[in-house]
Amino acid sequence: MKLYIGNKNYSTWSLRAWILMEKSGISFEEVKLQLDTPQFYATLKSVTPTQKVPCLVDGEVTVWDSLAICEYINDIYLSGKAWPAHKAEKALARSLAAEMHSGFMALRNEMPMNVRAARRVQLSENAQKDLERIDQIFAQQMNEFADRGGWLFGAFSIADAMYIPVVLRLMTYQIPVSAAAQKYIDHVMACEALQAWLNEGKQESEIVEQDEAGEPV
Amino acid sequence: MKLYIGNKNYSTWSLRAWILMEKSGISFEEVKLQLDTPQFYATLKSVTPTQKVPCLVDGEVTVWDSLAICEYINDIYLSGKAWPAHKAEKALARSLAAEMHSGFMALRNEMPMNVRAARRVQLSENAQKDLERIDQIFAQQMNEFADRGGWLFGAFSIADAMYIPVVLRLMTYQIPVSAAAQKYIDHVMACEALQAWLNEGKQESEIVEQDEAGEPV
Repeated sequence: MKLYIGNKNYSTWSLRAWILMEKSGISFEEVKLQLDTPQFYATLKSVTPTQKVPCLVDGEVTVWDSLAICEYINDIYLSGKAWPAHKAEKALARSLAAEMHSGFMALRNEMPMNVRAARRVQLSENAQKDLERIDQIFAQQMNEFADRGGWLFGAFSIADAMYIPVVLRLMTYQIPVSAAAQKYIDHVMACEALQAWLNEGKQESEIVEQDEAGEPV
Repeated sequence: MKLYIGNKNYSTWSLRAWILMEKSGISFEEVKLQLDTPQFYATLKSVTPTQKVPCLVDGEVTVWDSLAICEYINDIYLSGKAWPAHKAEKALARSLAAEMHSGFMALRNEMPMNVRAARRVQLSENAQKDLERIDQIFAQQMNEFADRGGWLFGAFSIADAMYIPVVLRLMTYQIPVSAAAQKYIDHVMACEALQAWLNEGKQESEIVEQDEAGEPV
């Protein structure tokens, strides 16, 4: 099973698929491609029609897009355990995952993931609203689950895979959050699999201009 | 079970959730709210934290975002039958659904759904690339499934729910497609549930300025 990913410094969607597989103890070969290079497109041309990462190739099955990969892994390898078991919690986890997958555009545009950097950034009103919603989500989930596993729904789920890159953005751009939301950030940053990703990302030197936002602190 | 939706003329995401439920014969109450009005936000305030449509309330469970609603309905009411049964087809269907859910931004911005209109529009290079990809998807699936049910994977699936609003955009902006892709358009436009939606949408007179694109033909 091969997972094609982009730069660990920048590629949020790659991280989402990667961390679910890594946290689930699934054995896979990681193929890292430098974003927006000729080699990136040359390699992906024969792999996926979208020529985007992440893309998972599992024998004769090809899956692209982070959320589809997570659902596939959950179906085929995790017997459904990558979502909460309780019906209402599962519905909420899926709502939150989908909300991230299709939304938070201002936050995503103005605060690109850049794990090796420390920056200060001027945010639009829409990005500030996005941050308020992020704080609300983290705080609400921690009020219920901080002492029951520490992830958004206690045990690690696809919802966490979707929101972990947001935590990394909060770190890079040094955004203050509520005390309850901070519990989630602390829990995420203590994750060993994530630390391994970050260590490699911080050693990368390639630059993607459009993902370099803000002023150095 | 209540499904909150927006204007049938404009709201693509509402249509996605609605058509899956309608095609599946699920009984639900439709609550239509006029997009971007004070009443829209006043009603949704107590229903969903995102204040967006579609939103499904099923007893104590609240689900928002079209894809999460489709997955929820599939899980709870359809025993998984809203995705193809075969593993590789299911993976492809999920990839296509996720690709729509998070992508095709240029097409979505430049060709808003507007079912009562007939327009001509100047498209950016990115929107043209989106259209090429749409044609590729429709044509590939029809080459395999046109004679085996006519939907993207033969039987109606969540992938169709995701792509039906694109078909409606192709109609409004009178975009030519390949012969194979045209088979899908013809199949979609013959769907009775969709025709019921369109009949109501065409009778709506409310105008959302930002969704009025192009020149009348």
